[in-house]
Amino acid sequence: MTKYKVKFLPDDKEVEVAGGITLLEAAEKADIYINSLCGGEGLCGECRLQVTGGKARADKNAIGFFSKEEIQNGYVLACQTRVEDNLEVVVPAKSRLEKEKIITEGVPLTYSEPESISLYRRPADPASFFEPLVSKVYLELREPTLDDNIADIDRITRELSKKTRYSSFEISLACLQNLAAKLRQHKWHVTATVARHNGIGRILQIEGGDTTNQNYGLAVDVGTTTVVVQLVNLKTGKVIGVEGSHNRQARYGEDVISRMVFACSRGSLDPVHEAVIANINTLTQALSRQTGIDTKDIISIVAAGNTTMSHFLLGLMPCSIRLEPYVPTTTIYPQILARDIGIDINPQGILEVIPSVASYVGGDIVAGVLACGLADKQEVQCLIDVGTNGEIAIGNNDWIVCCSASAGPAFEGGGSKWGMRATKGAMEKIEIKDGQVTYEIVGKARPRGICGSGLIDAIYELARNRIIGQDGKFNCGR
Amino acid sequence: MTKYKVKFLPDDKEVEVAGGITLLEAAEKADIYINSLCGGEGLCGECRLQVTGGKARADKNAIGFFSKEEIQNGYVLACQTRVEDNLEVVVPAKSRLEKEKIITEGVPLTYSEPESISLYRRPADPASFFEPLVSKVYLELREPTLDDNIADIDRITRELSKKTRYSSFEISLACLQNLAAKLRQHKWHVTATVARHNGIGRILQIEGGDTTNQNYGLAVDVGTTTVVVQLVNLKTGKVIGVEGSHNRQARYGEDVISRMVFACSRGSLDPVHEAVIANINTLTQALSRQTGIDTKDIISIVAAGNTTMSHFLLGLMPCSIRLEPYVPTTTIYPQILARDIGIDINPQGILEVIPSVASYVGGDIVAGVLACGLADKQEVQCLIDVGTNGEIAIGNNDWIVCCSASAGPAFEGGGSKWGMRATKGAMEKIEIKDGQVTYEIVGKARPRGICGSGLIDAIYELARNRIIGQDGKFNCGR
Repeated sequence: MTKYKVKFLPDDKEVEVAGGITLLEAAEKADIYINSLCGGEGLCGECRLQVTGGKARADKNAIGFFSKEEIQNGYVLACQTRVEDNLEVVVPAKSRLEKEKIITEGVPLTYSEPESISLYRRPADPASFFEPLVSKVYLELREPTLDDNIADIDRITRELSKKTRYSSFEISLACLQNLAAKLRQHKWHVTATVARHNGIGRILQIEGGDTTNQNYGLAVDVGTTTVVVQLVNLKTGKVIGVEGSHNRQARYGEDVISRMVFACSRGSLDPVHEAVIANINTLTQALSRQTGIDTKDIISIVAAGNTTMSHFLLGLMPCSIRLEPYVPTTTIYPQILARDIGIDINPQGILEVIPSVASYVGGDIVAGVLACGLADKQEVQCLIDVGTNGEIAIGNNDWIVCCSASAGPAFEGGGSKWGMRATKGAMEKIEIKDGQVTYEIVGKARPRGICGSGLIDAIYELARNRIIGQDGKFNCGR
Repeated sequence: MTKYKVKFLPDDKEVEVAGGITLLEAAEKADIYINSLCGGEGLCGECRLQVTGGKARADKNAIGFFSKEEIQNGYVLACQTRVEDNLEVVVPAKSRLEKEKIITEGVPLTYSEPESISLYRRPADPASFFEPLVSKVYLELREPTLDDNIADIDRITRELSKKTRYSSFEISLACLQNLAAKLRQHKWHVTATVARHNGIGRILQIEGGDTTNQNYGLAVDVGTTTVVVQLVNLKTGKVIGVEGSHNRQARYGEDVISRMVFACSRGSLDPVHEAVIANINTLTQALSRQTGIDTKDIISIVAAGNTTMSHFLLGLMPCSIRLEPYVPTTTIYPQILARDIGIDINPQGILEVIPSVASYVGGDIVAGVLACGLADKQEVQCLIDVGTNGEIAIGNNDWIVCCSASAGPAFEGGGSKWGMRATKGAMEKIEIKDGQVTYEIVGKARPRGICGSGLIDAIYELARNRIIGQDGKFNCGR
């Protein structure tokens, strides 16, 4: 197949690509992210590029998006234009997917707010609820004798049932296959890696010697727009690194609905599935480089996302989620080997996806409810998760109700006049004190609009200062 | 690599082999089974062949087994001679592993014996204890509505928990990955295949339509000397085919001990493991041809063997079984996908190996105890399993004691003057009635000796006719 060179300006990035792929795909290869709200269907007209060198074959249906002058100046839609020559292409700022603010750390709430509308509260002592999915247990076993010649694995589980809260265990064949030699070679001093699985202990690996210090896990937030990975020391519970990036699925559609349409219309979710796997692998490798921790010492992953993202992650077709009566394939996801879906950690390492509740109440909100302790107290609390999809959960240790809506469009462009995504120039924090308004802008830039978190801040501050009432109306008489 | 032709006489079978392999391996390739008591170590001298054409390189250490004349006449040990020329080889009858009588059917006991020494009694009604590992359940599900829009898999398990005795289920990712489309394509009429696994239902596959009539399993007896496979209709419990063959591991040693020595001295059990897998695959294919049943409709295998054979089957190193204090890797074997060890049935088909008790009390005797109901009654009964390794279990529903010994050598050559294996000419059945002795000979040939089952028959008949007493001595005074 013929190869062509495509140079992107003003980035001055050049990639070599196979002839026939779209400019959108070529840009992705050059790590340049282009707006593609419709998922490359040629419908939204957001991915405009200017071809300034070489000849590009543009789809005729796309010309409706351009003026005669623009066409003469080489303007094309990236998703509808195939590379059949060496090209030079200019990416206008407007077509560029701006680097959004990816929240990779919990921001402690510093101002004092009434208890009843606290949005997010971390438990006082993280250690008190730290119960990792996978733990490592070092065992110094007694050598077998004629009076005590139980099977090798029984010798291990006999000790494990004393040192863990599991009374029964499940052992993979891989784990048994070289066990006898390993135990004898290491003089019966070994470390067992045990995962929680339906209430029983799933023994993932037996290593020689004491390896309890090499026990790491990943916490993955699979957002529609961004993917964030935390590297966690599972012995101490300490987060030792965090990395985030755009969800590479964005090229197949901006929101979950257009990604579902993309996958279901072509009858395969492979590209969408592989995109998020590539995200996780890239972030994991970056964390491994930063911290010097071998990916082979990462033995578990817990991932949370909305129901559609969880389906994409595991390769489950989400078509019926989109259409009435809105049915997912499953809400409880099987614990699998991470390598089974192409994630590169320890070969025996597992992946567990936080269960969803329904098609539009996903594992992300379940994880949020767990983390902020909403279900632990009698007091009624409220959790608001404003992502591209937004959920609100209200409840206590007895009941919880939850609803969800497309929050991105509602808060950040669709429903509010000055709404915008949390990119450069968005007002993200607002405070009203003694009649004075202070605010913070993403990228410390000139304000261009207000993003979701800014909007919620504004409403909260207006209510706290009694400028609006409980009915949401301005207190004009005041 | 150079290839050579080796012709075996008087069989007149020719095979093409890679230069450098032994004559023992070449013979195996030609489906000619050669005696190899020591497992190809050049120690027993049983694998004598005569090279009558071409030049073979024999190991010098092997010449001690031959006279000068024999060496001049081209006699070599098959295991110590490498193929480096086109050869013509004569296989003497004595070197040939004779086709043994492989018992592939339960022989009903027709003569009346005192209850207390019954050896084997089938339960009156096989259906009463037929509880297959895997069952298929046909489901006609209600289509989801807005009032009943639970996840697809929950719709299935809701119905399964009504139609089976399982209340919780485990579902593989593979089973979920195309579930949504399958359910809708088949208008919610599907068949679930469910395996018993640690008390919960393990859903192996979901098929469109009603496939409950295509549900087959294999019962595999992994004997040291022979491997027997029964094809069972898991809907009816009926055995619809049975095939047996020599255990191909025989080339690595006649008994479990020499096979363990073979595997442990070379640090790999791959050839031994692969040999028994080849046995099972070949027998399964033969059964599939005979019955016209597709191997893809075979969804489960239950295998029983002594502890060493079970280890070999699953690829577990058995080295510590052989040496004091005689420790196996495990006595309870994980339920695995059959394909994970290279057995070719349905890709989601499972293999379960009957648990062992200890290093020398294996799953074969456990299966025997289960099948004859020894553990069900208060009455004390006795089960004697005379294989190459023999076990005797005595007990009732409260207690069972069991011991084992190398029965082949004891009954069939080692300990008794006229003992022999159950090959042509062996006396296998004896009856004494009104002072008349009648007997049956394997292959209806001239009697050459007595095999284990003949020996036990003889003792039983002598005791029943009071020719010997309970002390095992002849009643000379009678």
